[in-house]
Amino acid sequence: MRLTWILSSFMFFMSSLTFGQDAPPLALMPWPATVKNLPATGQMVIDASFAVGLEKHSDARLRRTVAIFLDDLRRHTGMLPLDFSVSAPEKAQLTVHCGHPSKEVPELGENESYTLEVTPSGAKLSATTTLGVMRGLQTFLQLLETTQQGFAVSAVVIEDKPRFPWRGLMIDSSRHFIPVDVIKRNLDAMAAVKLNVLHWHLSDNQGFRVESKRFPKLQGMGSDGLFYTQDQVREVIAYARDRGIRVVPEFDMPGHSTAWFVGYPELASGPGPYSVERTWGVLNPAMDPTRETTYKFLDTFIGEMAGLFPDQFFHVGGDEVNGKQWDANPQIQHFIRAHGLKNNAGLQAYFNTRVQKLVAKHGKTMEGWDEILRPDLPKSIVIQSWRGQRSLADAAQQGYRGLLSYGYYLDLMNTAASHYAVDPMSDAAASLSETDKKRILGGEACMWAEYVSSENVDSRIWPRAAAVAERLWSPQNFTDVNSMYARLDRINDWLDAYGVTQNTNYDVMLRRIAGTEDISSLRTLVDVVEPVKGYSRANLAVSEPTSLTPLNRVVDAARPESAAARRFSTLVDAFILNPANSAAEPQIRALLAQWRDNPEKIRPLAENSSLVQEVLPLSQNLSALGAAGLQALDYLHRGEKAPAEWETQQRAVVQQAFEPKAQVLLMVAPAVQRLIQASAGENATGLPIPKSALD
Amino acid sequence: MRLTWILSSFMFFMSSLTFGQDAPPLALMPWPATVKNLPATGQMVIDASFAVGLEKHSDARLRRTVAIFLDDLRRHTGMLPLDFSVSAPEKAQLTVHCGHPSKEVPELGENESYTLEVTPSGAKLSATTTLGVMRGLQTFLQLLETTQQGFAVSAVVIEDKPRFPWRGLMIDSSRHFIPVDVIKRNLDAMAAVKLNVLHWHLSDNQGFRVESKRFPKLQGMGSDGLFYTQDQVREVIAYARDRGIRVVPEFDMPGHSTAWFVGYPELASGPGPYSVERTWGVLNPAMDPTRETTYKFLDTFIGEMAGLFPDQFFHVGGDEVNGKQWDANPQIQHFIRAHGLKNNAGLQAYFNTRVQKLVAKHGKTMEGWDEILRPDLPKSIVIQSWRGQRSLADAAQQGYRGLLSYGYYLDLMNTAASHYAVDPMSDAAASLSETDKKRILGGEACMWAEYVSSENVDSRIWPRAAAVAERLWSPQNFTDVNSMYARLDRINDWLDAYGVTQNTNYDVMLRRIAGTEDISSLRTLVDVVEPVKGYSRANLAVSEPTSLTPLNRVVDAARPESAAARRFSTLVDAFILNPANSAAEPQIRALLAQWRDNPEKIRPLAENSSLVQEVLPLSQNLSALGAAGLQALDYLHRGEKAPAEWETQQRAVVQQAFEPKAQVLLMVAPAVQRLIQASAGENATGLPIPKSALD
Repeated sequence: MRLTWILSSFMFFMSSLTFGQDAPPLALMPWPATVKNLPATGQMVIDASFAVGLEKHSDARLRRTVAIFLDDLRRHTGMLPLDFSVSAPEKAQLTVHCGHPSKEVPELGENESYTLEVTPSGAKLSATTTLGVMRGLQTFLQLLETTQQGFAVSAVVIEDKPRFPWRGLMIDSSRHFIPVDVIKRNLDAMAAVKLNVLHWHLSDNQGFRVESKRFPKLQGMGSDGLFYTQDQVREVIAYARDRGIRVVPEFDMPGHSTAWFVGYPELASGPGPYSVERTWGVLNPAMDPTRETTYKFLDTFIGEMAGLFPDQFFHVGGDEVNGKQWDANPQIQHFIRAHGLKNNAGLQAYFNTRVQKLVAKHGKTMEGWDEILRPDLPKSIVIQSWRGQRSLADAAQQGYRGLLSYGYYLDLMNTAASHYAVDPMSDAAASLSETDKKRILGGEACMWAEYVSSENVDSRIWPRAAAVAERLWSPQNFTDVNSMYARLDRINDWLDAYGVTQNTNYDVMLRRIAGTEDISSLRTLVDVVEPVKGYSRANLAVSEPTSLTPLNRVVDAARPESAAARRFSTLVDAFILNPANSAAEPQIRALLAQWRDNPEKIRPLAENSSLVQEVLPLSQNLSALGAAGLQALDYLHRGEKAPAEWETQQRAVVQQAFEPKAQVLLMVAPAVQRLIQASAGENATGLPIPKSALD
Repeated sequence: MRLTWILSSFMFFMSSLTFGQDAPPLALMPWPATVKNLPATGQMVIDASFAVGLEKHSDARLRRTVAIFLDDLRRHTGMLPLDFSVSAPEKAQLTVHCGHPSKEVPELGENESYTLEVTPSGAKLSATTTLGVMRGLQTFLQLLETTQQGFAVSAVVIEDKPRFPWRGLMIDSSRHFIPVDVIKRNLDAMAAVKLNVLHWHLSDNQGFRVESKRFPKLQGMGSDGLFYTQDQVREVIAYARDRGIRVVPEFDMPGHSTAWFVGYPELASGPGPYSVERTWGVLNPAMDPTRETTYKFLDTFIGEMAGLFPDQFFHVGGDEVNGKQWDANPQIQHFIRAHGLKNNAGLQAYFNTRVQKLVAKHGKTMEGWDEILRPDLPKSIVIQSWRGQRSLADAAQQGYRGLLSYGYYLDLMNTAASHYAVDPMSDAAASLSETDKKRILGGEACMWAEYVSSENVDSRIWPRAAAVAERLWSPQNFTDVNSMYARLDRINDWLDAYGVTQNTNYDVMLRRIAGTEDISSLRTLVDVVEPVKGYSRANLAVSEPTSLTPLNRVVDAARPESAAARRFSTLVDAFILNPANSAAEPQIRALLAQWRDNPEKIRPLAENSSLVQEVLPLSQNLSALGAAGLQALDYLHRGEKAPAEWETQQRAVVQQAFEPKAQVLLMVAPAVQRLIQASAGENATGLPIPKSALD
């Protein structure tokens, strides 16, 4: 049944080829384990009389869950408070049957399964725990559609449970501070796609972001005044718990720790003094693992934070220690020799062993990045892998639990499809024994914050994190990229209701960049660009980027993945497949003409704005692509093979357009290149054309 | 000097005639008392080295003022924290000279004047008080422009002070609850346009919105759980104070008070029981002014609230008592006779006198709507007039201070120009003696909340409230509507930086209405409509609107004033003035064609959404206007007089388009009508064409 839907959805997508005008039948994301009764045979209308009834168990937490659901329903419909209510099951349109309350603090591995049955006359949600109810209510919400009868939910039967118990989003609040309201709206969005762990990266070289009452110079001198008070931390944790989300704090040590040393230089392995770091990268300062005072400090600190963060897991980082301060310190080198630790890696293992004991002493389970993995640590610890499935599989084979973040780094500006293709159980992990496989808990999307501010962080997280969320929730064989993108587009808008700004701040930033209201020409350009990928932004910078570098440029406003470019690419492939008889041609032609003619429209903006001026070369490249593409289209339309000389010229145009400028890339260049190649008679399909589309 | 600028700005506006592509030289709003050095002769670049220095006085409040300013500067530039700082005056680009601290709690009539001098090498702001510094810093921010050199502030000399000391915005949190974060972002926007009073309408028939610890059933039974805790109230007051804004609470009595009676029916004049009111209008329940227990209750209540709200003024409402409960209660009628009070009006005067004594007992000055004005009240009270300048002038002549809200009701969906034309000193007030004139303190824009939710309230307040803000701050003779609109457009976008959603929620709401991402056709229609005016929405409703009626329709998303329609009207007038040689024609033609062709594009959306469906008749009307306008344009273009028969037919088309549908109006109908009239040889200019444009 599911396969049928995917195919028909894809055919539908390919056949309509209008931009987003139509949506797939069910816009669920993540896709549930099983969906029955598709295509839908009716719908349940949601109007002001809608009410939820609680069967059996109905404790305060469950009632709060339903209240949050009703509030979400209000956001998604614009219907007002008070008319929706919790009432007796017999009067309710949606009945909730909850077996028993979830744990007071959400725990790893709690049952999140649910069954949802919607008929035209009513709906029933059953779950073992409150967490399952939360997940099922999100699915119910996502079934909501606008119809001729107002808002309605499709009739459907869903039996659902997550594939992995640990589905996280890491937010780095250190490199740039992320205010509490931004964290909260992202928790709403996480809940919407069933992510269940906020991994909060709270200290690094560039800032120590939590109030410590025991060591107030940590935030007092290490944060530029930008930190979370303990009350705010409790507020975030409570907000997350209400949405079934665990909050795991990370305090990175012994490296990535300059911000600690501003107030407490005695913790460091080098003499200091230290100041809050403004640059990025793997830096030299590291804690001194040889001094007992270090562990005394950490004992007190971890104790304080273990009391503040109720989650079972406590992340100590442990990544990227370059050892330079240790090499330069004779006492530390003496310690290594005296204790037979061999080298710096041995010293870090010693440190981890000591820290693990402190974490355990305060009742927590230690978590860290790949580098902490050493055989002498107890099997209870959890390894977060940024290195890959190999590293994860090795850990599992040694008896350690782990989760994958390799392939899920949102800051690298890769596509949703690329994240979607990464599976924690693939590659080296695929050949693990069943017992070892059970140690792979899931994964986390990571939002490292070198180039994000509270203004654009949402647009770096969403919608791409939703693709990771689906990978971690949905069945392993659910991998259709076209279906994923069709639903991702819907989820992207769906999240608007929670106030995440990945859509709304785009225009706001572009208006500021242009200094004027009419940004249509600028948007025409920026719609089809993306920031450069991987770690190349730093290499392409005019001067070394720091935490003080303004994040107000086109590269900061541009979406990590251009939906417009993706759709253009799909149009081009459909056209190349059948140039003589393609509905895509007029749309392609209109876009190419718009790009060709855009420079004269954007020029007046550039005259008043240096931030527009820096993208004028891209505007010229886009114009040249438009002109070249139109010529290629003409050749194809006439069924005439383009001359070789012309093709050579156009190849240079495309080559120019491939060059990053102002740290952004023109994402329509490959599709125009395919048009040119096709016009010259070359095989030019870019996307693999699925069999179903060729039938 | 100012006049020169206005004229040149208007000429500029008329000559460019591209939509918002260019902005007037200085986008200040409200316009300052005096602006020198225009046109600007240079600019001061704002980059990461920008710092503020404090001369002379530098207490904590002033430092906080500068910190908020720097945060605002970050929002408006996208430059990051930490690089801007408060430093020694000799290193600063902007030096602030503040005479002495303002009062701890802002007071009516405090000095808000300032002088701002910007040169290419530096800027200096001088003010007598911290409040003046706040106002001057907002002006400095508004001078910010994007330039070829990055962000810069124009060289200028400004001497400024407000015309009126009381410049308010009333927000009704009772009819629909407005959450704290919405209030706070509106305080930011108020500060940006130098409004200095938040009048907070906190109780009415539909909800009692403040936590009372003395009478917890007020919010416990009278608010559906939607109320501000006392901590939240303090948070809002502190936030406002940091921005130089006073917070005046209003607890409406003896009418508009059903919500009190849900928990305390013994306060009412009729037997009860009572429930939170869902309908609108002037309702019967009123407090019983004849019982001493009423005053005992109010004494305690006012005492509690006087402690919570530090402002000197305490608003007791007093409006719209219909007297029906009093008529129906023999004891009350007996009381009236026994005390020689003549009638219900006499009874209300008695009530007000008693309440005024309680307000005074708790150290506050009473404020109320027109109806409270009776000669036996002390001259200290303040009258807020919703009835007009006559009422205000009468009060002033009797020795009472007053402020104007007549003409400033934002909920009536009138134009910014109409609010801008209302002056507290005009009409009856114009002929007052100088002494009496001093009693007119200013005015308040009022956001009554029958048809607003947290989702669209910002779009009902902004940008129109900025026109009221200018009326109350700027010189009386500063009345150029074209200049006002040019600057209003800029301010509208400027406020984006504070997170007010008058721009961003428009697309979000339209996407929800359409249930899909591509809303361009829907936007083409909704861009040129406005909600019906005055109180006609209720009359045009299919069923009686209540506080439970969904606010999710096109009428709720549409802007109160269509900027697109206004600009179209300007284009049409420019064209009619000189059809043979007008740069406006191609733009008019493109718009008319877009409207004509829109129904086929919007239809697929309507097939999936009842909320789109209800505006299809408007879409047809707009299409007909487009077709009619194009024909008229052709006649005019050819210099040919349109046949009378054709004109008669088109008149019917326009008539159709004038009819409200789905509670919205097509705002381009008048301009198309003028085109048709002009094509038939009639005088058809709509806007008065200023002399300057005819030269």
